[in-house]
Amino acid sequence: MVPVVAVVGKSESGKTRLLERLVPELGERGYRVAVVKHIGQDFELDRPGKDSWRLMQSGAEAVILSSAQKLALIKLIDHDASLEELTHFLGADFDLVLTEGYRHDKAPKVEVHRGQLGSDLLCLPEELLALVTDQTMDISVPQFSPDDVKGLADFLERKFLSKRDNDITLFANDKFVPLNPFVKEFLVKTTLGMVSALKGVEKIEKLDIWFRHKTKRKQ
Amino acid sequence: MVPVVAVVGKSESGKTRLLERLVPELGERGYRVAVVKHIGQDFELDRPGKDSWRLMQSGAEAVILSSAQKLALIKLIDHDASLEELTHFLGADFDLVLTEGYRHDKAPKVEVHRGQLGSDLLCLPEELLALVTDQTMDISVPQFSPDDVKGLADFLERKFLSKRDNDITLFANDKFVPLNPFVKEFLVKTTLGMVSALKGVEKIEKLDIWFRHKTKRKQ
Repeated sequence: MVPVVAVVGKSESGKTRLLERLVPELGERGYRVAVVKHIGQDFELDRPGKDSWRLMQSGAEAVILSSAQKLALIKLIDHDASLEELTHFLGADFDLVLTEGYRHDKAPKVEVHRGQLGSDLLCLPEELLALVTDQTMDISVPQFSPDDVKGLADFLERKFLSKRDNDITLFANDKFVPLNPFVKEFLVKTTLGMVSALKGVEKIEKLDIWFRHKTKRKQ
Repeated sequence: MVPVVAVVGKSESGKTRLLERLVPELGERGYRVAVVKHIGQDFELDRPGKDSWRLMQSGAEAVILSSAQKLALIKLIDHDASLEELTHFLGADFDLVLTEGYRHDKAPKVEVHRGQLGSDLLCLPEELLALVTDQTMDISVPQFSPDDVKGLADFLERKFLSKRDNDITLFANDKFVPLNPFVKEFLVKTTLGMVSALKGVEKIEKLDIWFRHKTKRKQ
């Protein structure tokens, strides 16, 4: 499973600004970072009347817009998706997912704080992985100044990115299935062994297997 | 693999209009349809200066915007994606992918034609699965009038949707791996058998397995 770290903080604390500097820092170190942003109200990706909007309104389950510069996959849903749903939607091709917000999710959290916004934090110290703050706080949580983006990147790298093992991720019935190292190794070896016997398959660096039971239609 | 049908036709032939009527017709029959639209120039999903745009510009490999109504996954790329890449990006949770355009892809094609636009078609008859036209053409391809959306839906249903077998899809190193029925059944049974032995896994309706070999970082 791609590790997820939630960047939380009060309004105007500097979450986006931190992400804008942290993402390229990690990118330069060779990591693929995805960012998840929660949007409070509905958003339009396209003006009403444009074709893609018309297609979405016609009841398509998803619309992909594809240009030479950008891919966008848009899906209508009926609830705020959890980070587990979002990482499933995102796929496996990332080293780290950073979120802006998602304070109530169980993901490990980095809080961004500014003294100007008061002396209290949004999270309890025991919920925090680290704190980014312009004034040192008297709590036993690793703290970084807002300018020490390299320090925070080092910290996240040690914590989540230094292990470069083979990774296998399993979702059964849309639920993430945690695997212990033995089961993981067993699944990796069995699955790769089986698939590598197929014609046309070379050394496997990436593998996606999707199974769908299809006797019923959606209601 | 989710079947793909390309809806092609000259400019102003009525492709979007047809899709707008075909998608809900198939939806009412219980199928989950995704639509792929090629966009000639770059498109903006967000105004410059807005947070998500700032995050994308900072070098994130992907940005997810999530609201209670809509999910959008945006990825910068450096080339026009093929339909194979796009169906990989889309995932397995669809019964049919309809595209607008993609005339040069190898996907089966339905051409939309209007007599007003001339007597020649965009595709050769042998490239066509079906023709939607307001005047009957002297070629041996199934033809539907633009108003006969039900007839076209029946045709697509028979051709691509009536088989409701268990399905397993394999992408190795980002390439789709075609499987014959015997191998498919072998993989389904072996994989489900292995995974169903894991704790907490109930009757499997959907399964995603993602393997990533991770000794190198991206350059």
